[in-house]
Amino acid sequence: MTSGAEGSVEDIARAAKAAFEASQLIASDVRKLALQKIVEQLGANKDAILTANKADMEAAQLEVDAGRMSKAMQNRLDLGKGDKWESMVKGVQDVADLPDPTGVVSYASKLDDGLDLYRVSCPIGVLLVIFEARPEVVVNIAALAIKSGNAAILKGGKESNRTTVLLAKAISEGLAQTSLPRTYIQAIQTRAEVSALLSLDQYIDLVIPRGSNELVRNIQNNTRIPVMGHADGLCHVYLHEDANTEKAVRVVKDSKINYPSACNAVETLLLHRNVLDSVWPEVAKGLLEVGVQLICDADTLQAISSPDLPEKSVVSSTPDSYRTEHLDLKLSVKMVDSLDAAIQHINAHSSHHTDTIVTESQEAGSKFCRGVDSAGTFVNASTRFADGFRYGFGTEVGISTGRIHARGPVGLEGLVIYKYMMKSTADQGHIVGEFGVGEGMKSYKHTPINTSTVPF
Amino acid sequence: MTSGAEGSVEDIARAAKAAFEASQLIASDVRKLALQKIVEQLGANKDAILTANKADMEAAQLEVDAGRMSKAMQNRLDLGKGDKWESMVKGVQDVADLPDPTGVVSYASKLDDGLDLYRVSCPIGVLLVIFEARPEVVVNIAALAIKSGNAAILKGGKESNRTTVLLAKAISEGLAQTSLPRTYIQAIQTRAEVSALLSLDQYIDLVIPRGSNELVRNIQNNTRIPVMGHADGLCHVYLHEDANTEKAVRVVKDSKINYPSACNAVETLLLHRNVLDSVWPEVAKGLLEVGVQLICDADTLQAISSPDLPEKSVVSSTPDSYRTEHLDLKLSVKMVDSLDAAIQHINAHSSHHTDTIVTESQEAGSKFCRGVDSAGTFVNASTRFADGFRYGFGTEVGISTGRIHARGPVGLEGLVIYKYMMKSTADQGHIVGEFGVGEGMKSYKHTPINTSTVPF
Repeated sequence: MTSGAEGSVEDIARAAKAAFEASQLIASDVRKLALQKIVEQLGANKDAILTANKADMEAAQLEVDAGRMSKAMQNRLDLGKGDKWESMVKGVQDVADLPDPTGVVSYASKLDDGLDLYRVSCPIGVLLVIFEARPEVVVNIAALAIKSGNAAILKGGKESNRTTVLLAKAISEGLAQTSLPRTYIQAIQTRAEVSALLSLDQYIDLVIPRGSNELVRNIQNNTRIPVMGHADGLCHVYLHEDANTEKAVRVVKDSKINYPSACNAVETLLLHRNVLDSVWPEVAKGLLEVGVQLICDADTLQAISSPDLPEKSVVSSTPDSYRTEHLDLKLSVKMVDSLDAAIQHINAHSSHHTDTIVTESQEAGSKFCRGVDSAGTFVNASTRFADGFRYGFGTEVGISTGRIHARGPVGLEGLVIYKYMMKSTADQGHIVGEFGVGEGMKSYKHTPINTSTVPF
Repeated sequence: MTSGAEGSVEDIARAAKAAFEASQLIASDVRKLALQKIVEQLGANKDAILTANKADMEAAQLEVDAGRMSKAMQNRLDLGKGDKWESMVKGVQDVADLPDPTGVVSYASKLDDGLDLYRVSCPIGVLLVIFEARPEVVVNIAALAIKSGNAAILKGGKESNRTTVLLAKAISEGLAQTSLPRTYIQAIQTRAEVSALLSLDQYIDLVIPRGSNELVRNIQNNTRIPVMGHADGLCHVYLHEDANTEKAVRVVKDSKINYPSACNAVETLLLHRNVLDSVWPEVAKGLLEVGVQLICDADTLQAISSPDLPEKSVVSSTPDSYRTEHLDLKLSVKMVDSLDAAIQHINAHSSHHTDTIVTESQEAGSKFCRGVDSAGTFVNASTRFADGFRYGFGTEVGISTGRIHARGPVGLEGLVIYKYMMKSTADQGHIVGEFGVGEGMKSYKHTPINTSTVPF
């Protein structure tokens, strides 16, 4: 990894593209070796990195004291907490050990005797990855980029700069022990550099932002380069008329309180009219006990109103409440008259991330899963399951609410595309002018070839 | 199909999204039925449509006579020529008979006892398809959209308006005999409507332009909605130092003259220094015989210069020659010193569409296919093979030079994405708070489920 500080932004982008192109001729096991060397370098530099991280934490403390940074953000900077270091390093080793996502044939066909076509997975090209706060993301994303064969330009948050500079150095020293190009992974420091890079679509193939809604939306609005990620996570739970009370209480509580600031936490609860006086009071009780504020429409508020409720624990909603991602112990609540109305409300208000129905009906569950146009549609399960590790991908690049390329939690597969390779072994090569209708013309055979790799 | 002329453009887009959402609850065999009904309606209205097409042809003749339209464009309007009508109708039936690209499970995993996850293919949403001249494209694209479950808004060229209005009516009448929404496929007439639609990314999920470089580039530069297609087709053939003369002559000629205005025709020929006086004169002779103008650098010009050459049949190139998509019987020619130099020239100048090497070396072919960063990389085969039908996809949505979602010739697969469905059948539903490390916590099982469909 090299720092781009010395060259122009266009130089950085051009170098990344050149590194990507050069890397295509290097065997993929070199990329695995690079990850192992990075693990070694992280181990060798652990003390220095954690010392730098302490300095970042101390500087952040001044910001917290001055009210310019939240305690939560400062916590995210801390690389020395619990098993965070170990899990960061283990993450690189885990990625190294995953199957190679490149070089895999997904379609192969014999077009004619001696003319074989292969569709083979390959990296996308140059990734621009922009993230905030958590310094371990630099290592995580560098590992994913290297494993999948993409070059990458990484920009972290300025709050973690002392830490990420040393993490980047360890990555650089790991790469230097292999034949991969020096500019395969580069780091940049400033927002101005990011802005400039977002216009260089001739060099950069995909932007991956990981951070606040504001960061993601700002990037989506300022580039023609494809962006993979999500700005909002406005998830719903819908309690159908036959919802089981215990399932409803458990699923709604877990979806809300397991990690309220996560994108897959529930923000709006929809209730069928028929559960207003049965299931809903039990769900409300469970939520109020753990300090969730309920932001209710007239029907759902009426159903649980009582003089005993603490002040402001239940308040009236506005139409805006159902377009708000609270990221906090708050939940918007609304009654609907039917499953169809629930699906329509969700399609109109959801961020198309993850939505859940609680129902005992096979038919209602099936209809909800098909009718709700979101990346994840669940039955009787918490929205919080929407996660690459929980899905079993071994790692997670991010969660996409886009509708092309990759949707929902994205594993390494999201960082590859494919190309077509074709080879003629005929004595005269192959030309299309020999195929067609009429005397002496050839027809395409289109016989499947059973292989998972390209044989040349 | 309904005409959008009466409502505002936003109404059209909103209606398309609503139709898409409603269609998700309709069984996929209804979409197959709709295609069969459209085949019937096309048959019933054949005479009226071909009469309208004659009127379009006559109006075009006036434009041709006045020098405002090329004869080639007028020819593309002609629906009565040869077997064009029959192949259009057969195309709809062929698409109807293809396997359903939706509802296919590509990943299924048991996360826990009673908690199953399925990744299942589904349509993308609302397509905006913009095409020029050929009236049959309205039928072709409507069939693909319906088969894959996407709603679509279609805009054809104004030159074919009389024809496309009647084709659209036949599609509309076919759809009306099914339960699919009336606004599932809509047609618009004006460029102003297209411009307005390009800003409505809350309703439109993918733009597919099919037409001139100018059309595609203009759309790419004016929307945040993902665009699938290609502006340029700047394809290369490289003759390696060991190129066989017969293969070289055949592959280069076919790549150039089989259909010079196609995107997969060759535009630049690169020659290794060692074939300058052996293979190259034979290739040049073959090209000059069929009227191809050669635009050569100093070395390749010198090697074939002769007083017998017709005037202007061989001219000197400029650096711009190697960035030009001629779409005509012209070929830029350049000498390189090595395979590496050829790969570098192609990566710097190619539109990343399709590039071919002519070589007898297994190693050189392999290196070229991996090192050239294009959607198609071929050995001893014409660039003209880059085509969905030739690849065996049964149909072609278009050819993409993008690097996410779909690359190269795109079949029906390019019109689908996937969503994740998850279902808990446990007595208490499933929550993530029960999983983790420590006493009494559950671990994820991640056991593969062997199924191609979602069982609920």
